[in-house]
Amino acid sequence: MEIDYSNIKVIGFDADDTLWVNETYFRDAESQFAKLLNKFETENKIDQELFKMEIKNLPVYGYGVKGFVLSMVEMALELSNNTVSNETISKILEIGKSMINKPVELLDGVEDVLKQLSKKYKLIVATKGDLLDQERKLEKSGLLDYFHHIEVLSDKKEENYKKLLQHLDIKPEEFLMVGNSLKSDILPLVNLNAKAVHIPFHTTWIHEQVEENETNGKTYKTLESLLQLPKILQ
Amino acid sequence: MEIDYSNIKVIGFDADDTLWVNETYFRDAESQFAKLLNKFETENKIDQELFKMEIKNLPVYGYGVKGFVLSMVEMALELSNNTVSNETISKILEIGKSMINKPVELLDGVEDVLKQLSKKYKLIVATKGDLLDQERKLEKSGLLDYFHHIEVLSDKKEENYKKLLQHLDIKPEEFLMVGNSLKSDILPLVNLNAKAVHIPFHTTWIHEQVEENETNGKTYKTLESLLQLPKILQ
Repeated sequence: MEIDYSNIKVIGFDADDTLWVNETYFRDAESQFAKLLNKFETENKIDQELFKMEIKNLPVYGYGVKGFVLSMVEMALELSNNTVSNETISKILEIGKSMINKPVELLDGVEDVLKQLSKKYKLIVATKGDLLDQERKLEKSGLLDYFHHIEVLSDKKEENYKKLLQHLDIKPEEFLMVGNSLKSDILPLVNLNAKAVHIPFHTTWIHEQVEENETNGKTYKTLESLLQLPKILQ
Repeated sequence: MEIDYSNIKVIGFDADDTLWVNETYFRDAESQFAKLLNKFETENKIDQELFKMEIKNLPVYGYGVKGFVLSMVEMALELSNNTVSNETISKILEIGKSMINKPVELLDGVEDVLKQLSKKYKLIVATKGDLLDQERKLEKSGLLDYFHHIEVLSDKKEENYKKLLQHLDIKPEEFLMVGNSLKSDILPLVNLNAKAVHIPFHTTWIHEQVEENETNGKTYKTLESLLQLPKILQ
């Protein structure tokens, strides 16, 4: 079935790994963390345990770098049976600060595409994570002027997007979401009868993966690059 | 000069210490932190140093509990010259989690006033802090239905409120902000020719205090309780 994009008024862009590189920095941080603690456990096991800790803490801390750092500290205490050195804790805090201060590396064609689309549509950023962090990245990115505003969602489930649509005062079919995560950027939207375009990023966090069958019967397009977006909207 | 409230369309409410108790929990946490470390320094000195650390880290971590906990951990390492025990770090993490899980204690008359005002105005929450944290508190508070949506601002300066007004698509004089902080909820608004009502909370963070002269020539009302708000809007 052909998807009709003609009534779209607002396009929401996921930020991390859709507009700019992010996952890569988390993967780097996890690997630094595993190296810091490799006298207590194998790096592979540390990686798995950290992931479990993050999931355990997600309801309390939510998404973003600060919660991630707090999980690393907690994991270091636990993995070492409370024998980890203060210097190591200090290095974990440094990993976090350096993640927050990373330069913004735009993905292919982002600025051209936004420039073009901003003439016809209201563009917003719809991201989870930390508001300050995302505002800072948007500022550093030089993309600020193309967006009407940022919506930071505490999670990206159907109910969060429902609130977003209500807040935007538009019908679901007038909204298009563009993002790299099937689970967070695509499925909740198509379930609400909004539109969604999937642009996978080369690495994807395990938590973001979905089973093939969850996508059955849902219609959305998958693109290899944002550069292909303007063409399919024509 | 009499303030004209007749053209107000949207009322923004600060959340922490305007709708519900918050400062008290931070003060409690600081005092627990000082007690944990009182073999390294006097509790008074620890309190001062923690405050300095929070200010130093504010540009990186922003507002909210998670950044506060990360500052406490960093402070513990520094104050102890890297000799603090893992058990103490663990207790600091616990202080943070228990702050996040605190029940919401509404201030006097909040629900009645919101119920009344929501019939005539669009009400929003305009808060800084952590989005997940604020959404959770709003949910726990039972006040969710009175608000059109939450705006979490990374800071509460004139430029943040300018973006908010643009986002709301209203003129400054159609917006009234209600909050407990002169610096964050009142001055930026009156500077933008929006309206503001100040309702002081009994404790106020040092960082929130402003000099008397900064308020000169700016017109806003100060109330003792939110209960007085409906009357002055009539």
